Amino acid sequence: MTGNTTQTQSAETFDLIIIGAGSGNSIPSPALSGLKIAIVDDGRWFGGTCLNAGCIPTKMFVRPADVVRNVREAQRLGVSSGDLDVSWEAVRDRVFGRIDPISASGEAYRESGEPNISLVRETVRFTDTHELTTASGRVLRAAKIVIGGGSRARELEVLPFGDTVFSSDDAMRLESLPNRIAVIGGGVVAAEFAAIYSGFGAEVTQLNRSPLFRGLDDDIAATFTSAGSRNWRIHTGVEVTEASHGESGWTLSLSDASTIDVDAVLVAVGRQPNSDRLDTPAAGFDHHDDGRIQVDAYQQVLRNGEPVEGVFALGDISSPHQLKHVANQDARVVASNLLALEQDAPLTENTLGPVPYTVFSAPEIGVFGSTLEEAQRDGHDAFEVRQDYGGTAWGWALEDEESFCKLVVERDTGKLLGAHIIGPDAPILLQPLVQAASFGQTVHGLARGQYWPHPAATEIIENALLQAEEEIQK
Amino acid sequence: MTGNTTQTQSAETFDLIIIGAGSGNSIPSPALSGLKIAIVDDGRWFGGTCLNAGCIPTKMFVRPADVVRNVREAQRLGVSSGDLDVSWEAVRDRVFGRIDPISASGEAYRESGEPNISLVRETVRFTDTHELTTASGRVLRAAKIVIGGGSRARELEVLPFGDTVFSSDDAMRLESLPNRIAVIGGGVVAAEFAAIYSGFGAEVTQLNRSPLFRGLDDDIAATFTSAGSRNWRIHTGVEVTEASHGESGWTLSLSDASTIDVDAVLVAVGRQPNSDRLDTPAAGFDHHDDGRIQVDAYQQVLRNGEPVEGVFALGDISSPHQLKHVANQDARVVASNLLALEQDAPLTENTLGPVPYTVFSAPEIGVFGSTLEEAQRDGHDAFEVRQDYGGTAWGWALEDEESFCKLVVERDTGKLLGAHIIGPDAPILLQPLVQAASFGQTVHGLARGQYWPHPAATEIIENALLQAEEEIQK
Repeated sequence: MTGNTTQTQSAETFDLIIIGAGSGNSIPSPALSGLKIAIVDDGRWFGGTCLNAGCIPTKMFVRPADVVRNVREAQRLGVSSGDLDVSWEAVRDRVFGRIDPISASGEAYRESGEPNISLVRETVRFTDTHELTTASGRVLRAAKIVIGGGSRARELEVLPFGDTVFSSDDAMRLESLPNRIAVIGGGVVAAEFAAIYSGFGAEVTQLNRSPLFRGLDDDIAATFTSAGSRNWRIHTGVEVTEASHGESGWTLSLSDASTIDVDAVLVAVGRQPNSDRLDTPAAGFDHHDDGRIQVDAYQQVLRNGEPVEGVFALGDISSPHQLKHVANQDARVVASNLLALEQDAPLTENTLGPVPYTVFSAPEIGVFGSTLEEAQRDGHDAFEVRQDYGGTAWGWALEDEESFCKLVVERDTGKLLGAHIIGPDAPILLQPLVQAASFGQTVHGLARGQYWPHPAATEIIENALLQAEEEIQK
Repeated sequence: MTGNTTQTQSAETFDLIIIGAGSGNSIPSPALSGLKIAIVDDGRWFGGTCLNAGCIPTKMFVRPADVVRNVREAQRLGVSSGDLDVSWEAVRDRVFGRIDPISASGEAYRESGEPNISLVRETVRFTDTHELTTASGRVLRAAKIVIGGGSRARELEVLPFGDTVFSSDDAMRLESLPNRIAVIGGGVVAAEFAAIYSGFGAEVTQLNRSPLFRGLDDDIAATFTSAGSRNWRIHTGVEVTEASHGESGWTLSLSDASTIDVDAVLVAVGRQPNSDRLDTPAAGFDHHDDGRIQVDAYQQVLRNGEPVEGVFALGDISSPHQLKHVANQDARVVASNLLALEQDAPLTENTLGPVPYTVFSAPEIGVFGSTLEEAQRDGHDAFEVRQDYGGTAWGWALEDEESFCKLVVERDTGKLLGAHIIGPDAPILLQPLVQAASFGQTVHGLARGQYWPHPAATEIIENALLQAEEEIQK
């Protein structure tokens, strides 16, 4: 037995320590094979939130829920259905039957696949700028450290996580689908799970303090709320003031004096960066008010406003965007800059933008950039145009009367400052606009400089762009 | 009674005659309001093929058929359904309840809405380069003529059109859905109707002389054939040699000595330009071997290789692409050049490309440009990459094992010579690639110069582009 020897163990030294096996796990590359690397992760599953409890499995639930909902909503298209059943257990087992082995094999590979890489499956905390101490007392040191420790679901004081009060981590692994579920929250996680659970047949009530999607364009938020309300109950402007659990499940008392009885509760009221668990303040790093680590344009962690040599952060623990594609881009910049340090080459700035934000709920949302109000507040002479799906042939085919695309455009330059799409395929309809904005193309000539196949849904984008050009010519 | 006076009637003179109320109908604009214009169309419906019997109504049928098929195919996603019914009559009435009034009001507006525009609802034929004679004997002359007379479905000699042998013109207006339908043809029209009819519950057999989609990439064609075969019967390499109609419908004898019994037949073996009906050869215009009118880069009609002053053609009657978005672009060029003639300004060339080609069947297809074989035959040092949907998170969500995106790229420049996508949302996933190719962007930096929201289907495109860059760097 080693007894208390862990306390006196000498430090283990690496060339590079990567904290978090999400996007950070992509950093070890052949170019870095000369480095002695430790990957540190204490997650329930290996591979980060996106793979195990986030983007990827949710979309595998979204699809069957969509199929069922599309049939239910297709009466207006002339389709009627008899009994329609989707098995929670079958989908769950299919999803995790696929995800879990990927996670496990990724872990096994890191465990034993590469001689230069060690895996540390322990909780760690910073004990100096370049030093970590593990829960068991191991001391790890490296000249280069990458902090990709991610974020975790916030807990509600009145409803601590437990068997029937769960976060998105457990939301897809439920033994069976509860009949009545409260989903607390107004952002993407709450919206996606409300759609999934209701699609699978649960009676869902979404509760939120403020209107849903408060950060998005008002019309997007309002349309989401009215469309979502066809499939689940949405109750906003309320907080849970008290929760009691009895034989028939949870009784939630709300701030408007109403109560609601449910079998289970998904708490999706935001995520907090894991900097506290890593005790990054102990290393003296700079932090934002919300706990995120401050980084410079090179993803270097700041301390007293100055970059700490060799220490980088990426993803949710430092980014204002809790998005996997942003974490991946951060990781690419970090990987490039680790190599640059090795080679004494200049560092690369992370300048990529704009950042698309997508919601795979019912309806779907795809947006980037500013709302009109934000653009004007930022001093732009901006205007917005709105193209309804229903004004295009594809919208006719869908019998769609609510979906739309809004563009926010700078008048004198024609620059796309923002795009806001709600409706079927919004996340992919956004891409031509992301591409234009990313490569400096304005709205001038963008619609007429390329073919848009008729009568595809992309005509919605084409027509929005034409409207923007007309507005500029006024 | 006017008796035979039509024969001796004097010519009516216009500033501009537009033949065909499809894309040509968009040409009259405020800028041309000083011209005395005749619009000539003898179509069953006003507004051209796309609106009345083409792209627009088909997509309104495609959608409910998709909903039904998605449920049938969703067993692999964990969805099971009881009786599912889609009413042909309800969809048909919804579709044409929407289309026909648009067509009628478009006609009424042209009939009486503008003092400078007359509508001539007669068959016409060219009797000189700038002269038309109507079926009733009216003689119409104009210094400017736009020929947008479109195309019509080809007939099969062995199966002339009739009550139960129909073209796409009638394919959506059927009183009721026949139980057993033969769809003859291997292109987009046959593919879309085979998917619609089978989605609505008919027993469909698609027959074609050659493999389906012979003009497309071989893998696209093969994948379409195998995927389509899940929903309807596909029998290629055969011709109908004899057809007899008895009490139990049609018995079609095929060239492989087999026979097939069906209630009705859709003949979709291609479309021929209406130049013969307009007797454009009588005006001495130049024609392609397939009957299309030859035009120059300004859409001016050629006669002995020289443009005929003031005579333009657009759309199916002159274009190698029988596509509405191409006809619309042709019409914009013609409109611009009509104005240029008025103003003695230089003409505009029609240089827009590449041309996307989309199929809204099951599965969907979206392609542009060259296959690898075509690119190499054209002398390019080209390669292709293939990204399967199944290699992305979205593909996992779909449990997709057959869909893919192929890119054909010029090695030394990185230029996108072609893109070939088959699978869900192919027509809209194509757009970022069309945009890049249209604006001269190569594959270099295209994936990493923009965000692709995770885990949207657009990651298929992102990954294909990354593969192309890797291949160039090899």
